[in-house]
Amino acid sequence: MLKKTKKEQPIILVTNDDSIAAPGIKALAEAVQDLGRVVVVAPDKPQSGMGHAITIGHPLRLQKVAFIEGIEAYTCNGTPVDCVKLAVDKILHRKPDICLSGINHGANHSINVIYSGTMSAAMEASIESIPSAGFSLLDYSMEADFNPAKLYVRKIAIQMLAKKHDKHLLLNVNIPAVPELLIKGIKVCRQAYAKYEEAFVERKDPHGKMYYWLTGEFVNFDKGRDTDVWALKNNYVSVVPVQFDLTNYELKKKIDTWKF
Amino acid sequence: MLKKTKKEQPIILVTNDDSIAAPGIKALAEAVQDLGRVVVVAPDKPQSGMGHAITIGHPLRLQKVAFIEGIEAYTCNGTPVDCVKLAVDKILHRKPDICLSGINHGANHSINVIYSGTMSAAMEASIESIPSAGFSLLDYSMEADFNPAKLYVRKIAIQMLAKKHDKHLLLNVNIPAVPELLIKGIKVCRQAYAKYEEAFVERKDPHGKMYYWLTGEFVNFDKGRDTDVWALKNNYVSVVPVQFDLTNYELKKKIDTWKF
Repeated sequence: MLKKTKKEQPIILVTNDDSIAAPGIKALAEAVQDLGRVVVVAPDKPQSGMGHAITIGHPLRLQKVAFIEGIEAYTCNGTPVDCVKLAVDKILHRKPDICLSGINHGANHSINVIYSGTMSAAMEASIESIPSAGFSLLDYSMEADFNPAKLYVRKIAIQMLAKKHDKHLLLNVNIPAVPELLIKGIKVCRQAYAKYEEAFVERKDPHGKMYYWLTGEFVNFDKGRDTDVWALKNNYVSVVPVQFDLTNYELKKKIDTWKF
Repeated sequence: MLKKTKKEQPIILVTNDDSIAAPGIKALAEAVQDLGRVVVVAPDKPQSGMGHAITIGHPLRLQKVAFIEGIEAYTCNGTPVDCVKLAVDKILHRKPDICLSGINHGANHSINVIYSGTMSAAMEASIESIPSAGFSLLDYSMEADFNPAKLYVRKIAIQMLAKKHDKHLLLNVNIPAVPELLIKGIKVCRQAYAKYEEAFVERKDPHGKMYYWLTGEFVNFDKGRDTDVWALKNNYVSVVPVQFDLTNYELKKKIDTWKF
């Protein structure tokens, strides 16, 4: 890793899972454009729900593309996690100062953190000791208004750049889909226990064979007022600090007594 | 969910990420065949490194297939997580008593838990309140000797079925690739901070364009003697209890003091 000289700007790596063509990544890059040297490396096609997938079975490509005036941008044919790995190793040739992922079109609160390509890209950066954050707006529409979200992306990025944090800093930020005036501020939360109750839609193809579409209804089982779901419902921007050590230390104590 | 009558056998859902054709899933099913009604639902092609990916963009198919005598088996064209969701909703029509995933051909200790399709299938079951475990043998070969691993799969499955556990019980079990006599027993561990240091292999295609293969060297940064990497190096079977609440509660306290 190259040492930064005093005059050098921080490098901000920007990625997402909705692809380079999504309005959300433009909004994210614009929100932080003047805070450092922004470099965008994003999937060339939508990668929602890819979780922490990586590409092993086929080779990866990088393509330099036009983006916003003054911002260097590349697409990759892989997953969001691949984008982060390639950006560090083949484009930047050093760790960026921070990595920002999003702004996702749709919620990534509660259990969604596990399925989300947006958050997996940020988590990959965090594993690589790059402080990072994933941002999601609770609006799936491609016509969503990203202006209130941009304001909060900026506030959080400024804090992330302001001082030395834990090198594995990882934030899951969700922004309610309401006008700026109605947003009550930022709430630091825990991940709610809420999940999708699956109901596959069953159809028959013209050859008489069944096929299934994954659908599901979101159900919040968590009545806590300290969760991301609660915060968003009450028009707060939710910030959940996330970790990649998945050890369940409570359960560890119990299992130590098992007689194998 | 249907209630079990007293006489009913427990239902053991078996899945993996190496596909129905991998020797590891046969070894797993055989190891627990007499402990209950085993139902196999596995991907129809290898899905290693798929992480917690789900299939949103195209429909899913299920196909009943021949497997081991006396065991009902299906393939699915989706990810390991899709297999679990479809098994519960469209095949079993109830939650199985436990879900076992693997036996993976290759290690899933330390940070691999995040990338692993094997562990993601088990985690999906855990989110669905099904006690579950993922099993991995530290041998990538298709000719690996699964006999010592089968013994430990069985020991752990018996414990899982023996009494009522936390409904979100989730175990990441790795088995060293050594003869049975050399295995010292089971060690309950925490996830090591160890990761792959990426080094993409760079090649040029016949048209002069670059492409990249993801490779990497595994590096253990964690000197603890309570980790899965340590246990495996010392010929123990490692058992890491895993959770899907990714909130970093320590970091949460620190961030509460940020001035946004």
